[in-house]
Amino acid sequence: MLKHDNKVLSIFALGGVGEIGKNMYVVQYDNEILVIDAGLKFPDAGMLGIDLVIPDISYLMEHKEKVKGVLITHGHEDHIGGLSYFLKNINVPVYASKLTVGLIKGKLREAGILRNTTLHVVDSHSKVSFQYLKASFFRTTHSIPDSLGVCIDTPEGKVVYTGDFKFDQTPVDRNSSDFAAMSRLGDEGVLALLSDSTNADKPGFTGSEWEVGQAIGRVFSHATGRIIFATFASNIHRIQQVFDAAARFGRKVAIVGKSMKNVTKIAHELGYLQFENDILLEPEEIQRLPVDQIVILATGSQGEPMSALNRMARSAHRKADVMPGDTVVIASTPIPGNERHVGRVIDQLFRIGADVIYGPDIHVSGHGSQEELKLMLNLMKPKYFIPVHGEFRMMRAHARIAEQVGVLPGNIFLLNNGDTVEIVDQDARQGGAVHAGQVLIDGLGVGDVGNIVLRDRKLLSEDGILVIVVTLCRRTGKILSGPNIISRGFVYVRESEELLDEANQLVSQTLAQCHADQVKEWSSLKSNVRDALSRFLYDQTRRRPMILPIIMEA
Amino acid sequence: MLKHDNKVLSIFALGGVGEIGKNMYVVQYDNEILVIDAGLKFPDAGMLGIDLVIPDISYLMEHKEKVKGVLITHGHEDHIGGLSYFLKNINVPVYASKLTVGLIKGKLREAGILRNTTLHVVDSHSKVSFQYLKASFFRTTHSIPDSLGVCIDTPEGKVVYTGDFKFDQTPVDRNSSDFAAMSRLGDEGVLALLSDSTNADKPGFTGSEWEVGQAIGRVFSHATGRIIFATFASNIHRIQQVFDAAARFGRKVAIVGKSMKNVTKIAHELGYLQFENDILLEPEEIQRLPVDQIVILATGSQGEPMSALNRMARSAHRKADVMPGDTVVIASTPIPGNERHVGRVIDQLFRIGADVIYGPDIHVSGHGSQEELKLMLNLMKPKYFIPVHGEFRMMRAHARIAEQVGVLPGNIFLLNNGDTVEIVDQDARQGGAVHAGQVLIDGLGVGDVGNIVLRDRKLLSEDGILVIVVTLCRRTGKILSGPNIISRGFVYVRESEELLDEANQLVSQTLAQCHADQVKEWSSLKSNVRDALSRFLYDQTRRRPMILPIIMEA
Repeated sequence: MLKHDNKVLSIFALGGVGEIGKNMYVVQYDNEILVIDAGLKFPDAGMLGIDLVIPDISYLMEHKEKVKGVLITHGHEDHIGGLSYFLKNINVPVYASKLTVGLIKGKLREAGILRNTTLHVVDSHSKVSFQYLKASFFRTTHSIPDSLGVCIDTPEGKVVYTGDFKFDQTPVDRNSSDFAAMSRLGDEGVLALLSDSTNADKPGFTGSEWEVGQAIGRVFSHATGRIIFATFASNIHRIQQVFDAAARFGRKVAIVGKSMKNVTKIAHELGYLQFENDILLEPEEIQRLPVDQIVILATGSQGEPMSALNRMARSAHRKADVMPGDTVVIASTPIPGNERHVGRVIDQLFRIGADVIYGPDIHVSGHGSQEELKLMLNLMKPKYFIPVHGEFRMMRAHARIAEQVGVLPGNIFLLNNGDTVEIVDQDARQGGAVHAGQVLIDGLGVGDVGNIVLRDRKLLSEDGILVIVVTLCRRTGKILSGPNIISRGFVYVRESEELLDEANQLVSQTLAQCHADQVKEWSSLKSNVRDALSRFLYDQTRRRPMILPIIMEA
Repeated sequence: MLKHDNKVLSIFALGGVGEIGKNMYVVQYDNEILVIDAGLKFPDAGMLGIDLVIPDISYLMEHKEKVKGVLITHGHEDHIGGLSYFLKNINVPVYASKLTVGLIKGKLREAGILRNTTLHVVDSHSKVSFQYLKASFFRTTHSIPDSLGVCIDTPEGKVVYTGDFKFDQTPVDRNSSDFAAMSRLGDEGVLALLSDSTNADKPGFTGSEWEVGQAIGRVFSHATGRIIFATFASNIHRIQQVFDAAARFGRKVAIVGKSMKNVTKIAHELGYLQFENDILLEPEEIQRLPVDQIVILATGSQGEPMSALNRMARSAHRKADVMPGDTVVIASTPIPGNERHVGRVIDQLFRIGADVIYGPDIHVSGHGSQEELKLMLNLMKPKYFIPVHGEFRMMRAHARIAEQVGVLPGNIFLLNNGDTVEIVDQDARQGGAVHAGQVLIDGLGVGDVGNIVLRDRKLLSEDGILVIVVTLCRRTGKILSGPNIISRGFVYVRESEELLDEANQLVSQTLAQCHADQVKEWSSLKSNVRDALSRFLYDQTRRRPMILPIIMEA
């Protein structure tokens, strides 16, 4: 490719560095931008009431005409969950593998933008060319089939993003990592590598999905009652192994949970999940078969309160519940923050009398550990290295690994979202930062909840609210009615009558004092009431409820 | 001992079964009650704004005159944190080991009840006799020194509670588990054993604290800058090993964090922590020494927002902060629910440029794993077995272990708090349940926050609150002023003016309709406004803020 003078290659993340989730990486050369992945993230514990978090794409919206396409590496929510929002604002073609396109279609249909979107199916042989940039793909192994890594050829050299990967040497679908393609890229010369840091602080190799298959076989050979198997709906390989075991042991498979039904249907139609149609059992029919001929495939391996497994455990599912003698398999590791939810579901299942199998025996991660990250680095032999897809400590651990295999410490960039790496004449340095941030989604609202609203929710969640209503005489300034105190989330009203009576008197006194002092501005009246009451309540209870004085005139 | 006719031995928990925390076990024979441990628990994620949770002791308060004493096994908060509250209501003598008494004293002093409490120091040779019951103690190893198991001799036989334990074969203070005493109890015959289930789902043996000492030695030999060491303040053995390493490597020790100062002071005074006084460094003096001569011992290994380590990481500590080149050791495992907090602190420390050492290399649990639990069962050879101190799944795993070593399945009791095991003529069966529950502490309030308040806090935390104020004419029923809408924690007011304007109009229309329909009762007016607004807002935003209509007359 020709080198164009005064043009800069820049690489940055709008999501996915310093965090797990909302992956979005950007490669820009001059006036041409390619975006890789458009994910969502689940809210932190502090983001009260928030449903989802997506990247702030205002930089891309300001440079809309430069954006030529979105490349998607695989079908997990942290890589596709923000795509509808992105396309509503920036309508460009999407490039993804067959299964990934299948999963994306459902989302775009729900958002009402499927017909307006151009979707291109790509595979490891595809090449997509733009003015300066040229994208190609290579097969990786991960916990969802049809995962790809991306190579973007630029006038400066190759920029490679691994996507999420591990090196599963015995993958269920026999489509192993494309070592040849990766080492070819390495031989041709990789300018910059962006690689998955999720397990960079885990030594050794991540286990193969095949090992989970072995464990599934043991479960099936021991279970005498029904088997209820909960895992991520997108883990098609694992679900394939459940279907295979069911066929082998003469059990029928009932599928419960919206996303499990949806994903298995798409994967089956597209040929990624293979089973004879007569192995399926409608959930309504579960009662009609002997217990040792049933498998129930369910969502809920993260203890989600509304998931199929949780509702079954609470006997709140219409079609299925858990019975004594069932064997329940929870084939996942709790995502940090979900440990207590998962623990509670397991406890509940044991209480019902089910046997529960959980933990590392029946789950492997989809992300490579340290030895696999080294292998990727040795295959790619990049000049520059940018660890991505991880909290800062994971990216830092990944940077150390890169140093160990010989990347120069000065050639490793630990970025924040928005930080750019600028490359001119194959020489990289950290450039300025573009605007990056997070957009909170709460119900239908996109971005209408921000720090002030969250701060109020936090205050309200800790100590509740007191509303004080009082009507003053327009003429004399004296109290005509009230003060009335309404409290929510503060104390039991019945058990705290005395406290609220005293608070009431205090408000009257404060207003009388204001009247005597000729304080008449409402803002002063309100702040006097708020301060006096706040002090009193903190003294009495060591709590700081939100206080909302409402002063009316009549 | 003589057998007394028609008398029943009953054993139950008021806290500690089906949960981790607020341990309180009760042994009652006829009119005599002994209580073992009085702990607290940290609130679940759903208990918004709650500081602490303690056992509901109303059963004991109803039978106050029968309660003869409280035996405390060791000085951890989940065993002593509810003691002040207990003693304020039931003032009986307390029996505990020397260090445990030292730690209890501080709590009772703070609660203003130290002078009114009788504290007895006991050790593994003590025997305490009541009318029917006789208590003795045996030494165990755990993550705090001076931990005891308890044997209560009853006319029916021996009831043994292990307390928290592991079998550390190389304990730091050389006071190993008292195998002789335990096997003697087993030989004399144990009627019922209550044993710690915390690690019942962990195979093998728990590592020795000695291994952590080895890891501490490696940290000290590699570190070239300051060492900041964060662990639980009560882990005196680990702290001893830090002091020992400091002495060996010529470093001074500065102690920061209230509980770290407090506990090390008590432990040093009582001889459980040994160091030369001149090894101590005042935090103010840290700046004056070369970096390679400093160790800072700090609280905050759980990522607690206000702890010393967290404040140091945010440069919000008055006397110390973290600098590039520091080695920070986080010597603990996150308690479920704290993973994200701990992760955030580690990230922050790495960003500052510190090296951070965390994870299983530098921490071992204080609780025995499966092989240790089997050993305890084989030493004690109990007729009846009650797994305690654990979530249900851990107790269930412990029950299986007991079956494996030969306890009859019918002789194992999986209890809920309050469930009694009644024993007559050495024959045990599950009896009725006594009242048990939890008391929530919020600020100074003990039990004044209950389900309604928590439900309101949850609603408020998710979608905030809307207060609608409107004044109606007393005579005509028409709107005199308002409606005014005040929103907190719902939406950004500035960006949602249109929505709030429409809501305003809707309230006016609803009230006009009520007026036309001759609806005059305030409760109906309010519920009409609430319903109409709730529907409208859910339609527009998919959120359900709390709606508080305030209707005034003038």
